[in-house]
Amino acid sequence: MQLLWEKNSIVQSMGEHPDKVHRLWVEQGFEHISDEIIKEAKRLGIPFRIIPREAFARKFKSSKSHVCLERDEIAYADPDVFLRKITSTPDPVVCAFDGIYDPQNLGNIMRSAACLESSGIIIPKDRACGITETVATVSRGGTEHVTVVKVVNLARYLDEMKRSGFFCYGLDERGSVPLWEADLTGPVCLVFGNESGLRRLTRETCDQVLRIPTSHTFSSLNVATSFAIAVYEAKRQRLLRTHSSKL
Amino acid sequence: MQLLWEKNSIVQSMGEHPDKVHRLWVEQGFEHISDEIIKEAKRLGIPFRIIPREAFARKFKSSKSHVCLERDEIAYADPDVFLRKITSTPDPVVCAFDGIYDPQNLGNIMRSAACLESSGIIIPKDRACGITETVATVSRGGTEHVTVVKVVNLARYLDEMKRSGFFCYGLDERGSVPLWEADLTGPVCLVFGNESGLRRLTRETCDQVLRIPTSHTFSSLNVATSFAIAVYEAKRQRLLRTHSSKL
Repeated sequence: MQLLWEKNSIVQSMGEHPDKVHRLWVEQGFEHISDEIIKEAKRLGIPFRIIPREAFARKFKSSKSHVCLERDEIAYADPDVFLRKITSTPDPVVCAFDGIYDPQNLGNIMRSAACLESSGIIIPKDRACGITETVATVSRGGTEHVTVVKVVNLARYLDEMKRSGFFCYGLDERGSVPLWEADLTGPVCLVFGNESGLRRLTRETCDQVLRIPTSHTFSSLNVATSFAIAVYEAKRQRLLRTHSSKL
Repeated sequence: MQLLWEKNSIVQSMGEHPDKVHRLWVEQGFEHISDEIIKEAKRLGIPFRIIPREAFARKFKSSKSHVCLERDEIAYADPDVFLRKITSTPDPVVCAFDGIYDPQNLGNIMRSAACLESSGIIIPKDRACGITETVATVSRGGTEHVTVVKVVNLARYLDEMKRSGFFCYGLDERGSVPLWEADLTGPVCLVFGNESGLRRLTRETCDQVLRIPTSHTFSSLNVATSFAIAVYEAKRQRLLRTHSSKL
């Protein structure tokens, strides 16, 4: 069971996946500040309960606000099913992350992924952060909009994607080509490392490694920021191409 | 006095502004993990002291790590001096923020501003976060590379910038033109609101309001993310223009 405490993630969760939602709990005396959430729950037919302070504190030992949504754990997409499905999607932009540990970073990534409509996020099964409650909260409900795949072996999965027609671009400050010079239309997978950059094996699996041009004296962009810039660039190129093909 | 506790911000501060630095303090028994910092301090001739645990705890009541750099408070640039100076800089990209409260957001902004070489950051004097210790830490030392100006009245200052030849672009999800369609070469000021978007007066002061195209069902990009994308786009257009004018 996943518990959500932040307004945006609660509203997004109820709206996007009402079937995954169990119950909404509100602490007595805080109905007014949870007004919008309660209205939305009523509209969607989601069961909610207003309970006294003591009962709320007893139920949620480490409560983080005065309202809590219980929902199923985030369901990850099956890697094989995802690959089959994404291959028949027009112009997908998939993004893979090689070992992000910081839930703050992953939460920011999920928020931007939802906004910029990334077609899916691939993360390793081990030695990496999953979609935790913190990630859901930081993403402000972005996690409800994005398909996430957990894979056992990232390099092998990237190889499978390449065989299915994806072009894999690594992003790294030591990349050989500026981001905007790469052709990011068509099926692409953008691959990001952690704070220390791409690992050797992952880097070698990529078809090409791109860089976001940064200052020579201060070059380390945050991974969530690099991700947002790269997905923006892909979106820009796609929309421009669609636009010019219509002319 | 500003206290820095995080490795990157300490190293950047010593390297970029040795004249603003007072002393480096290291807790006895933690010399090995502060090895790189101590070496850098020696190299730059910055006085440092290794003191016993009890003395360290007594000196820094709420210590956040085992090493601390004392430096001057961040000095903000004078608004008039900044405007004169920036007007004679070729192709400046200045960014203004209308009331950011969250030091995490401002820290992320300062980190990206240093990486993407924004020519200066303008923030309001009141009802907004300044360059605090948290901001410096989150920026990983980015604050040492960026000129920050605090102004009493943001709309009036933007008007002065416009009179000095700057084109002011607001960024907002309700903007009329996609970011990439705007001409971001030449002297520009990019203007950002807080989480709720641009305030009316600020919006009206801008020459044009741009949007980063986002999902219809989940549209709220984080302000630090919008900032990084917009500065990237300005950089892309400038480098492309420089490149093509050289051909």
